[in-house]
Amino acid sequence: MPQKPRALFFDVFGTLVDWRSGIAREARAVLQPKRFELDWAAFADAWRGEYQPGMEEIRAGRQPFARLDVVHRRNLERILGRFGLERTDEATRHALVLAWHKLDAWPDVTAGLAKLRPHALLAPVSNGNISLMADLARHNGLWWDAILGAEVAGDYKPKPRVYLASCEAFDLAPDACMMVAAHSSDLAAASECGLQTAHVARPDEHGPGTGETSPSVQVDVAVKDLSELARWLAA
Amino acid sequence: MPQKPRALFFDVFGTLVDWRSGIAREARAVLQPKRFELDWAAFADAWRGEYQPGMEEIRAGRQPFARLDVVHRRNLERILGRFGLERTDEATRHALVLAWHKLDAWPDVTAGLAKLRPHALLAPVSNGNISLMADLARHNGLWWDAILGAEVAGDYKPKPRVYLASCEAFDLAPDACMMVAAHSSDLAAASECGLQTAHVARPDEHGPGTGETSPSVQVDVAVKDLSELARWLAA
Repeated sequence: MPQKPRALFFDVFGTLVDWRSGIAREARAVLQPKRFELDWAAFADAWRGEYQPGMEEIRAGRQPFARLDVVHRRNLERILGRFGLERTDEATRHALVLAWHKLDAWPDVTAGLAKLRPHALLAPVSNGNISLMADLARHNGLWWDAILGAEVAGDYKPKPRVYLASCEAFDLAPDACMMVAAHSSDLAAASECGLQTAHVARPDEHGPGTGETSPSVQVDVAVKDLSELARWLAA
Repeated sequence: MPQKPRALFFDVFGTLVDWRSGIAREARAVLQPKRFELDWAAFADAWRGEYQPGMEEIRAGRQPFARLDVVHRRNLERILGRFGLERTDEATRHALVLAWHKLDAWPDVTAGLAKLRPHALLAPVSNGNISLMADLARHNGLWWDAILGAEVAGDYKPKPRVYLASCEAFDLAPDACMMVAAHSSDLAAASECGLQTAHVARPDEHGPGTGETSPSVQVDVAVKDLSELARWLAA
């Protein structure tokens, strides 16, 4: 049994915030006044569908590092044609990219992080850039010791550098840190780097009944929400 | 008259925290039980005296970037002989380096930052490393949107990269950001990069009556404490 972690690192999209309904809502708010009508959830899914391929260009070294806002913009350009959005102007496209800065946290998150705070250092270790994480924190009342992750590491998860740079930023050995995520692939990569791992069930991430209800890899703890994680950490 | 800044960047050592009395106190707490007796304030001054020369090795490119905890440790080694501390062991020297993580904020800081928070994004843009800033925030009840500065930029103030990387991290133009410091040299460098500047008087930084009571360079606003800065920002 390892010691309880001294730092908790959080995946954000899907784990802490509901990207799907948020992007659908914000896209509608931006586009409907301009007389666009489309399947908003399908638009969110299509945009998120470009997420891993967009980052893979950078992870594989075919493109230099660019922050996620830039990758989101590139990915948006790739799907505009599928939704009849080719004639949107620059300001509209920029407003759409900023939709990612306005996502709502899952209902347990704000109170859950407050409960976790006395027990460990808390930081997002997300592929999102610093301004995106700062805006989500303000929007949802989240509190972080620092914003770590892709922009600080200069690469994207699941590359080992992102996890290891985050441990180093807090002067902690990997086994004193715990990655918290709703995605088994993220946890598997963190575990490879020596971090402890916690799985949070987010059964509705891609729409009702579509997310991971339990991990498909071995983890140190699996919980249904952050309050349960706080009880485990305090025990 | 420029627009009010959307982000405030804070110098930390001297501007937000009282390094001199804190280092003197913590050094005494570490060393007196080991039967060392020395002039604790002189020890603090001597250690701080190595601060700029130690960073200059990195700024000038003669040494690769290392975080401030590492520079503090190197600087400590340079002054041990002057205080009869050559026989201190590894654990003692490490404990001394961590003294910088335990400094007290000046009396106006915690409440002042809370008043500033509704008006702008807030971040330390210090030469201190991320873990040092996170520990000072926990110790003093400070709240940051992100920890920016030397470790994120990979260089030390007053190199332009540190100020500019901080603006970029928040997706803001330099003139939408304001550097807040008790040191005219820091503000002059920030102003060169296009940032707005605020001077905070810290008359006792190096002991009573030794600090800057007013700026020696042109600034956008000069205040006696952070509450006055909050009133200016809200006006």
